[in-house]
Amino acid sequence: MTDHTPYQDDGRLKRLKDSLIERLGPQAIIDQPDDLVPYVTERRGRYKPQTPFVVRPASTQEVSETLKLCTALEVPIVPQGGNTGLVGGGVPYEGRGEVILNLGRMNKIRSLDPDNYSITVEAGCILQRIQEAAADVDRLFPLSLGAEGSCQIGGNLSTNAGGIHVIRYGNMRDLVLGVEAVLPDGRIWNGLRSLRKDNTGYDLKQLFIGGEGTLGVVTAAVLKLFARPRETAVAFVAVQGPEAAVKLLGDLRRASGEAVLAFEIIPRIALDFALKHVAGTIDPLGQPAAWYILVELAAGRPDSGLGDLLEEALSEAFESELVLDATVARSEAQAQQIWFIREAIVEAQKHEGGSIKHDVSVPVAAVPRFLELATAKVREMIPGIRPVPFGHLGDGNIHFNLSQPLGADREAYLAQWEVVNEEVHMIVHALGGSISAEHGLGRLKLEENKRFKEPIELEMMRAIKAVFDPKGLMNPGKMID
Amino acid sequence: MTDHTPYQDDGRLKRLKDSLIERLGPQAIIDQPDDLVPYVTERRGRYKPQTPFVVRPASTQEVSETLKLCTALEVPIVPQGGNTGLVGGGVPYEGRGEVILNLGRMNKIRSLDPDNYSITVEAGCILQRIQEAAADVDRLFPLSLGAEGSCQIGGNLSTNAGGIHVIRYGNMRDLVLGVEAVLPDGRIWNGLRSLRKDNTGYDLKQLFIGGEGTLGVVTAAVLKLFARPRETAVAFVAVQGPEAAVKLLGDLRRASGEAVLAFEIIPRIALDFALKHVAGTIDPLGQPAAWYILVELAAGRPDSGLGDLLEEALSEAFESELVLDATVARSEAQAQQIWFIREAIVEAQKHEGGSIKHDVSVPVAAVPRFLELATAKVREMIPGIRPVPFGHLGDGNIHFNLSQPLGADREAYLAQWEVVNEEVHMIVHALGGSISAEHGLGRLKLEENKRFKEPIELEMMRAIKAVFDPKGLMNPGKMID
Repeated sequence: MTDHTPYQDDGRLKRLKDSLIERLGPQAIIDQPDDLVPYVTERRGRYKPQTPFVVRPASTQEVSETLKLCTALEVPIVPQGGNTGLVGGGVPYEGRGEVILNLGRMNKIRSLDPDNYSITVEAGCILQRIQEAAADVDRLFPLSLGAEGSCQIGGNLSTNAGGIHVIRYGNMRDLVLGVEAVLPDGRIWNGLRSLRKDNTGYDLKQLFIGGEGTLGVVTAAVLKLFARPRETAVAFVAVQGPEAAVKLLGDLRRASGEAVLAFEIIPRIALDFALKHVAGTIDPLGQPAAWYILVELAAGRPDSGLGDLLEEALSEAFESELVLDATVARSEAQAQQIWFIREAIVEAQKHEGGSIKHDVSVPVAAVPRFLELATAKVREMIPGIRPVPFGHLGDGNIHFNLSQPLGADREAYLAQWEVVNEEVHMIVHALGGSISAEHGLGRLKLEENKRFKEPIELEMMRAIKAVFDPKGLMNPGKMID
Repeated sequence: MTDHTPYQDDGRLKRLKDSLIERLGPQAIIDQPDDLVPYVTERRGRYKPQTPFVVRPASTQEVSETLKLCTALEVPIVPQGGNTGLVGGGVPYEGRGEVILNLGRMNKIRSLDPDNYSITVEAGCILQRIQEAAADVDRLFPLSLGAEGSCQIGGNLSTNAGGIHVIRYGNMRDLVLGVEAVLPDGRIWNGLRSLRKDNTGYDLKQLFIGGEGTLGVVTAAVLKLFARPRETAVAFVAVQGPEAAVKLLGDLRRASGEAVLAFEIIPRIALDFALKHVAGTIDPLGQPAAWYILVELAAGRPDSGLGDLLEEALSEAFESELVLDATVARSEAQAQQIWFIREAIVEAQKHEGGSIKHDVSVPVAAVPRFLELATAKVREMIPGIRPVPFGHLGDGNIHFNLSQPLGADREAYLAQWEVVNEEVHMIVHALGGSISAEHGLGRLKLEENKRFKEPIELEMMRAIKAVFDPKGLMNPGKMID
């Protein structure tokens, strides 16, 4: 777990550690191999990260002191939150002596202002705790994603996290009013404004949001809160196909007045996998269909007749032949049953062998064309391959997952991950899409991004990186080099 | 209207003009004094801008050629849209030989995609035309402000325009999916993505949005569209005071499920001014009160009972003594009558002599404290002064306008503009507010902003400016120097 680089042998790392212990106390340093395991374990097992030690500052001031020391000694540093990222953005490289700066001890909710619909939190706060704190004062913090029980808001912010409710509330970027960040030289920028309107300069916080910790360390943020929905309506809908689904989405946004909270596409094969492998999954509709939509509407007031509205809209869509069949949940239990299908897909797919994954987005209206082209391409590349494309059609973000052919060798199949990615990403790019919709670039897509990004954009990114981090010490080799 | 600087006499401007005529055609150049008038007229009459000539490119390519030439010859340039700005951001300084680059000829709607809820427009499109194009396909482009009949979207974007619906749809920044911009050296960045999720790098478009044309020229943008509201409910409400108003806002956001489209505060004096000076204004309530709220809710579907909901919520607020009296419009005509009051205030105030204005915001919950402190301060400074603070309480943006004392000398009163601004801005700053909520910095607040902005933030801004515009030719002396 530890590593040995030439620079490590010149005594700088020891000096850094000694200074940190002196200033932050011994409890701020983790350097025993067993204790390091959770910090250097990369979620998808793709990398075997190494670090000489982890520093865990307890305050913005301590983050500042840490960065000041690292810059003086030219020691590279990797900011880390809950370590739930999927592209290796929050873990070090191997053998480079990169110190991990973990924000987990900075976990205070600094203030909560229901009248201002805002909350000020430190970077290490667990997302779910923020959701709960908001709910306690009858407010909603709408960011919601699989890892919410363990991911930290600083990581959400640094990766511009998305999740299930983007169509209604936007990405993390849209939920931030202000940011506190420490620059690599240790200077603290207090940008913790809680204003809805402020035109007094370049919007600098936008560089830190989604910046993967390559420009500085976000230590706190002011987040927007919302009124909590009082009523929801959930339906499981068999549609004519992806094109009908896009049309249905537009119609439902219109008919409900932008009340669409989630709009997920599910192919039959995903439902089949769930039915086969996950106990408790049931097919909500009588006849099988090729494509389904899980839609959830949310209204701000109870008894607003949302279920009836959804039923009417779906009847109209049935008459215009967009919809083949549909069931609207008539109880909370039924709604949960429907959502259970969506959640079961990820688990179910594991039982069908190797899966080559993509995290891509295209303009919403281009999703049908993307599915058509990408499916044809991978079938041509690997006969028998089983595409299981599902996910957030509402924002054009499809998890284009590909299960191995029946009976194929798992390892041999997974060895084709990169060549498949490359072909699919070329289609995504041609449709004006993104090769990383949600998860970021991190280590995984650093190189590939350079192939798809316009040179001028890479140049602007490099120039900005050079301004903030001239020595290249902040999360080196992530996002941009 | 023309000016003579040393650099102008060295023949560079003539070479530039000749080259532009050769490449863009003579119709792209305006240099006759009479024709220049609309381009050098500053809306509030605060400045007497001068320019040697105006260049009006008809395409992104022509903008690129213009900037390439300007950079080669080191000629400073001022990007300009509809010239409706209020801080002199889109007009040149006097005597500096700054060429105006007006985007008015780039006025095409490049594409409109109702299924993707997006529209791609050139910088010179008039805002209202975009609203209408969206409405034609049953969609909403929600940006709405006084100058919408003549302002251009490029200017809205470069100033991060706000307006009346920020509480529901956000500022301009929140409505942009992608940007096309030309850098000072003439390179074109095609960032016209129409994606809802894209995490493949720093979000560079955010620097151009609200950048006041100091980093490059925005030539086109992809904008978000929304479903059009089908029903609205408008009420005029007498409240206990600003604190009750903030509470009422929170309650209405909650009760309506974030259906609040506008929430404007109006003091009695503003209503009195309107009743006195603007024909057709009527007092909607029987008894005078010190403070009023104009609230509008919007719902996505017709017959959603929004009026009843508003009435019920106001009844509850009456019982809890937040509200003294209220009337809910029961027809479109009544709703217009109420909005007419709000619109009449600006006009009415002109008849009451000189007015010292502010464009400030504070956190929504801090508005009452701001009103209390700022009113006391200006009364102390100028006995008899008549504060008329009104505006967007929903997003903390109060137009803190101060009418002169009765019988005072107009010019002598207005001569105190800056000292009054300074005191009010100190209160705003102490409350964590912004000295320019909507209108930007431009020429007007360049210097003052330096007093209130943290040095570290000014340094970051300067460093970014230096990266994009190393020669300092793009809108020099605006926003940051």
